[in-house]
Amino acid sequence: MENFADRLITAIRNKNSPVVVGLDPHFKLIPDAIKQPFVSLLKKNSLEYAASVILEFNKQVIDVVAPHVGIVKPQIAFYEAYGWWGVKAYAETILYAKEKGLIVIGDVKRGDVPSTAEVYAAAHIGEMRIGDVAATPFAADAATVNPYLGSDSLRPFIQTAKDYGKGIFVLVKTSNLLSGEFQDILCGQKKLHEIIAEKTNEWGSTLIGNEGYSSIGAVVGATFPQEMVTLRKIMPKAYLLVPGYGAQGATAKDIKHCFNPDGLGAIINASRSILYAYSAEPWKGKYTMSTWRNAAEEAVIAMNRELRGG
Amino acid sequence: MENFADRLITAIRNKNSPVVVGLDPHFKLIPDAIKQPFVSLLKKNSLEYAASVILEFNKQVIDVVAPHVGIVKPQIAFYEAYGWWGVKAYAETILYAKEKGLIVIGDVKRGDVPSTAEVYAAAHIGEMRIGDVAATPFAADAATVNPYLGSDSLRPFIQTAKDYGKGIFVLVKTSNLLSGEFQDILCGQKKLHEIIAEKTNEWGSTLIGNEGYSSIGAVVGATFPQEMVTLRKIMPKAYLLVPGYGAQGATAKDIKHCFNPDGLGAIINASRSILYAYSAEPWKGKYTMSTWRNAAEEAVIAMNRELRGG
Repeated sequence: MENFADRLITAIRNKNSPVVVGLDPHFKLIPDAIKQPFVSLLKKNSLEYAASVILEFNKQVIDVVAPHVGIVKPQIAFYEAYGWWGVKAYAETILYAKEKGLIVIGDVKRGDVPSTAEVYAAAHIGEMRIGDVAATPFAADAATVNPYLGSDSLRPFIQTAKDYGKGIFVLVKTSNLLSGEFQDILCGQKKLHEIIAEKTNEWGSTLIGNEGYSSIGAVVGATFPQEMVTLRKIMPKAYLLVPGYGAQGATAKDIKHCFNPDGLGAIINASRSILYAYSAEPWKGKYTMSTWRNAAEEAVIAMNRELRGG
Repeated sequence: MENFADRLITAIRNKNSPVVVGLDPHFKLIPDAIKQPFVSLLKKNSLEYAASVILEFNKQVIDVVAPHVGIVKPQIAFYEAYGWWGVKAYAETILYAKEKGLIVIGDVKRGDVPSTAEVYAAAHIGEMRIGDVAATPFAADAATVNPYLGSDSLRPFIQTAKDYGKGIFVLVKTSNLLSGEFQDILCGQKKLHEIIAEKTNEWGSTLIGNEGYSSIGAVVGATFPQEMVTLRKIMPKAYLLVPGYGAQGATAKDIKHCFNPDGLGAIINASRSILYAYSAEPWKGKYTMSTWRNAAEEAVIAMNRELRGG
């Protein structure tokens, strides 16, 4: 079974792009033309209506971006928002993206006591056994996980990643403004997120692929470039999943330090700045809601170019 | 709109029980008689089959325990395990429990950056607006949340709790063996979980009900009785949601210190030791799989009695 980090690197090389397109469907921002065919559902069941709309939107986004990027990251909150219909759209989005040859990171940020974590891991990146039958509830290639509960809570995810050629990304330093409130607390000589980074590096040491990277990666926000420098050193073999680029304000300069000298080691997420490029600077003068696809494509090509430094 | 903590206390008084029945459906342990009517689904779709079974099991469990307890806590991992079919069973379990007059705590342990946390909060304890229509994706009365991302990540949950008369329980000190790995780290003079407990107390100060308790509670494992004493003092007005009783090994003596002198302030979760009482000590000599309902009922009555100290 191929190592997840190796598969990730192949996807990055094939598209010559470290970009991850975040599939965060904001219902309000989805173009009217996508909503129109489903509008009769609205009176029957508004959640089913919204879920149908977001699935169709995702498929069109995937079609637009797939020639330019190798990785997508649906954020499950935006699907749970529409109840089980939304979660169905989440599952189907994953399958559609995989059909198109993309790597899918399920941004689920799960974390629980070991017996429960085992079930989460099976659900999101593994398999469930029902009697003699094996089933795949959600078929993501990797999942984000929250480390607050400790090593034993992550072990089932690590084991499942090993068993199924999947990956995890441990929340180390998140991109939100107050992430430092607990994550930056000084514990003796080190900040909490540095301690968690050390552990992440240690957990990852058993899952190194042929390319020298581990299937146990880390989430490190682009919004904290100084911390990035330190964390890159603490976790030299971890793939960093970097949110905060674009709509959250970080620039190509800010994310320079998340890459290793080999040009690998990081994937950069952007969601709103690509999906809804038609509605925001610098594209909104050039495009409108009806040409949202062109805006999204130009935005992803521009982001690729920026990250390649040209 | 009635304050969540007040509603919780009413439920506790009505049943004279601080017990929370954890609805964690382990497919393997569900009695055969529950599975039988659905078995034709297995070949068609094993996830749909399992989801149908767990929903039916939950309904029967709820019928058995509702005369004796006022609160249930479905752990969403055990539903995500069966894909969107399972998540549908989660939503329907919540509705069924509420029909029976129970308070429902969604054990979802969500935590994310503020814009995403807002969506999670709306999904689990609030409402989503889809155009002009308001919809309720999951109708839980409260949700568990993970604090690792900081205050700004919890603010949307706190605001939603305020707006809709709901509650949250912040993970402070979890019941798993290695919870201390990060949660007990010394940050200056204090342990990390103590710092988070202080914050939880502060966040909760704006949501105190008529009974003097806050709708912002905390998860504190019964498996760490010494920490419990300290945490009870740091968060005098927080309702403590206490896992670890029964199958995880904690006893009535261990949870004595989670209650305040007024006899209030804590709810004690048990799941496996009630749902599958037929299969474990001390009941398995007396009951079999076919009399699992009687075992569950006797187990919940016995737990009530133990917690009342008699």
